[in-house]
Amino acid sequence: MSDERHQQRMQRKKAVVDERIRQATQTRGVLILLKGNGKGKSSSALGTLARSLGHGQRGAVVQFIKGRFETGEYLFFRDHPRLEWHIMGQGFTWETQDRTRDVEAAQAAWVTAKGLLENPSLDIVVLDEMSYMFKYDYLDVAPVVEALKNRPAHQNVIITGRTIATPLQEIADTISVVQDERHAFRAGVKAQKGIEY
Amino acid sequence: MSDERHQQRMQRKKAVVDERIRQATQTRGVLILLKGNGKGKSSSALGTLARSLGHGQRGAVVQFIKGRFETGEYLFFRDHPRLEWHIMGQGFTWETQDRTRDVEAAQAAWVTAKGLLENPSLDIVVLDEMSYMFKYDYLDVAPVVEALKNRPAHQNVIITGRTIATPLQEIADTISVVQDERHAFRAGVKAQKGIEY
Repeated sequence: MSDERHQQRMQRKKAVVDERIRQATQTRGVLILLKGNGKGKSSSALGTLARSLGHGQRGAVVQFIKGRFETGEYLFFRDHPRLEWHIMGQGFTWETQDRTRDVEAAQAAWVTAKGLLENPSLDIVVLDEMSYMFKYDYLDVAPVVEALKNRPAHQNVIITGRTIATPLQEIADTISVVQDERHAFRAGVKAQKGIEY
Repeated sequence: MSDERHQQRMQRKKAVVDERIRQATQTRGVLILLKGNGKGKSSSALGTLARSLGHGQRGAVVQFIKGRFETGEYLFFRDHPRLEWHIMGQGFTWETQDRTRDVEAAQAAWVTAKGLLENPSLDIVVLDEMSYMFKYDYLDVAPVVEALKNRPAHQNVIITGRTIATPLQEIADTISVVQDERHAFRAGVKAQKGIEY
């Protein structure tokens, strides 16, 4: 492509982008859902959290499923002065195989999460893998929707999980679907430190 | 669901998961591609980077498009002792509208990236938004494929961008597609600190 054609093409693109930016005038906290079967949902939430903390904001994370303290993300973020990190899971649900215990753990996690959604000093709240709580009927979705609607207006919330309950999708501002097109695991590569956990 | 049925269901699930884990025996660095038009690709790469750093690993980032030093991610990660961060873009390509300058910037970024892919002390290398370099013909893909094939065996690499050149997809271990199902921007919400940058 010639330099001139390139410039024309980019000028048109810039006009479109600038117009879109002009039309986006609201400032408010958003609810972001990251769903789908692909790798990268929790990672994406954590990357956004890093970005938020980088701007001096305050954040909190509740991990609903992971019941481990030796993950790279926990080791990395645990000492951050503007971040709370709650690990509520008792391990993966197929590890415990104990419904009563799982329901109790889920409800305790929700009590914590609800407190975060009521806390105006928090700019971002990550509810990691919360979607499984609804899938397995460990939690009712209605009070969660209610708490999300009533949260502080500037608070951003990210919820991750493979399938996300419909009532949450209805109130979401942004939904990204992460699809698994290929995964090293299926080619025989072990889950590894720094990538999967 | 009864507790007993829940337990049976989870036992079956555990058996499947355990068998898959048993079959995944290789340990090696993987090439991960994050593509698609949805929000969360760069965030996901940064979250994985955090995880890797949390385990004491060493990393490097090259941002090919973003030419800004005031992003939350840069502010957050810049002082990390085991991380190099390179911002090579001259701004978005539709901002510069200058093909010659963009090609020069892309080639300088590639020289840096190539050095990282040859560096055995790096456990993870993120080439953020590199895909645009191929889309706009700023870089040839062949030397990039070559460098990726020859990198240290343990090194993980993540490349992000909307559309990723086919030769890179051919050699990738993991590919996730992030699809935009809904975006707050289209409902009139401004790009905001801590979420978009």
